[in-house]
Amino acid sequence: MPNTTLPTPLAQPLFDHITIVGAGLIGSSIVRAVKQQNAAKHITVVDGSQQVIDRVAALKIADTQTTDIASGVRDADLVILCVPVGAMGTVAEAMAAHLKSGAIVSDVGSTKASVIRQVAPHLPKGVHFIPAHPVAGTEYSGPDAGFSTLFNNRWSILTPTDGTDQALVEKMRTLWESFGSNVEIMEPQHHDLVLAITSHVPHLIAYNIVGTAADLEKVTQSEVIKFSAGGFRDFTRIAASDPTMWRDVFLNNREAVLEMLGRFNEDIAVLTRAIRNGDGDALFELFSKTRTIRRNIITHGQETDEPNFGRRQ
Amino acid sequence: MPNTTLPTPLAQPLFDHITIVGAGLIGSSIVRAVKQQNAAKHITVVDGSQQVIDRVAALKIADTQTTDIASGVRDADLVILCVPVGAMGTVAEAMAAHLKSGAIVSDVGSTKASVIRQVAPHLPKGVHFIPAHPVAGTEYSGPDAGFSTLFNNRWSILTPTDGTDQALVEKMRTLWESFGSNVEIMEPQHHDLVLAITSHVPHLIAYNIVGTAADLEKVTQSEVIKFSAGGFRDFTRIAASDPTMWRDVFLNNREAVLEMLGRFNEDIAVLTRAIRNGDGDALFELFSKTRTIRRNIITHGQETDEPNFGRRQ
Repeated sequence: MPNTTLPTPLAQPLFDHITIVGAGLIGSSIVRAVKQQNAAKHITVVDGSQQVIDRVAALKIADTQTTDIASGVRDADLVILCVPVGAMGTVAEAMAAHLKSGAIVSDVGSTKASVIRQVAPHLPKGVHFIPAHPVAGTEYSGPDAGFSTLFNNRWSILTPTDGTDQALVEKMRTLWESFGSNVEIMEPQHHDLVLAITSHVPHLIAYNIVGTAADLEKVTQSEVIKFSAGGFRDFTRIAASDPTMWRDVFLNNREAVLEMLGRFNEDIAVLTRAIRNGDGDALFELFSKTRTIRRNIITHGQETDEPNFGRRQ
Repeated sequence: MPNTTLPTPLAQPLFDHITIVGAGLIGSSIVRAVKQQNAAKHITVVDGSQQVIDRVAALKIADTQTTDIASGVRDADLVILCVPVGAMGTVAEAMAAHLKSGAIVSDVGSTKASVIRQVAPHLPKGVHFIPAHPVAGTEYSGPDAGFSTLFNNRWSILTPTDGTDQALVEKMRTLWESFGSNVEIMEPQHHDLVLAITSHVPHLIAYNIVGTAADLEKVTQSEVIKFSAGGFRDFTRIAASDPTMWRDVFLNNREAVLEMLGRFNEDIAVLTRAIRNGDGDALFELFSKTRTIRRNIITHGQETDEPNFGRRQ
């Protein structure tokens, strides 16, 4: 867990009642952050799994918890959907009739155009939809994996559609800022392109290289494991992320992922050619340029400068 | 720096005099480990750069240091070449006439067949060549980046050629074990294939994705940096590794890298097709399998189980 300190808690709760639907890594982290930052008078967790609800109750992180979405959202001023992006439409449909007039509905999905397509048609008039995506996470899943500082010093993206009440967008900004996030407003389509290259394609190639290494005949899995400190192990972290969540991301951001993957493949073809031709200058030039990018990420506070991420193994 | 404890230092030095040629991350880490573990009575550093030698002197990590390879290797019972693999032949040629009869020559190159090809022909009779590769490192370079525990709990591979004195191979095993390493003996060609998938191709695709992200028109570098916590930043670590070292690795392990890259590309073509066709089951199956591999790497003590590598940012 990062050794970080959240901003001063809010002097007054922003919302009377927040309901989080889906108590996974992100949902349960929001619950904890809301509590710690005094962002709501009351927080309810809804989850379709009785096992998850029992665990949330045992963790004592929410005021109330239920598997019944109708009663869970009925009193909420803000409902945040924290389910895999492929499930957003179904959940929105199930809760729509029970939402309070004037409530805000938001989400944390890693894709935005598809979530808007799936959720918006179900919402009744008088309910405000402000899609969001906190760019933060770990490779762990479930209510035990969450922690209140997950969003601290990370960026959260809001993608409100035209005509959204600006005051409510600002209220959502204040909520995320109370968790320590920086907030950026973006067009949904642009979000999907930016995340395709900064998150989705990196996950895809990490999953892919780990799969490739697992399937070789000439190199055993035992060898892959022993010598993974040569670089391979770095990729296994994001390749250990939640399979359902990531399946849905690729199914729901297909065009942007395929576009960025096309660029990646073009570049790797050029690099392959440079290796085949023994073009050391081309390799050296690329390998020097990439150092600068990491330096910038560190300077901008999005990465540690400790060797090997500061890992203790 | 990992919070690890080295084995008990050797009761008696293994060697009278060890000379390390090249005081980068690996070379300077060996120097420190030799001192801390009492592996030699005397340790000399040779480096072609006066600036590096001045820095080594200031750090007080060696007994003697020099830019003159002839005098640097003259009294050594063991010389370890810690230069980029493309420079191994030149260095071997320069030192060959000055080696003591009975001396062991070793190296730490990330490729083994090419190093043997380049170094062996220069060595005089009576000198024993035992190539080695400690599979350990960080993204930092130079004499200040080294630390004595770098090899602790990592694997070091020895690739002796036929007819090598077994007692000397065991002596080299003892040396690496004194640094906390596990030692494996391997055929050079097999080493090159195993490292292609566990180290070289992972570095290549990391360099590549970072390069791709840097060159986009529709997504700015500022966006790539801000939202890098979505997964991208993991790749920037190994893509910040020493450009000269890695240029040489790809030029010197071309066949194995191209073979493994071919497998990676085949697999990504299948994955691309699954995304295009919306084949969620295929995606889910791969994403589940890769979780197991990470779990095994953690179980085998080659990775931390802390979320996000335990990074504090």
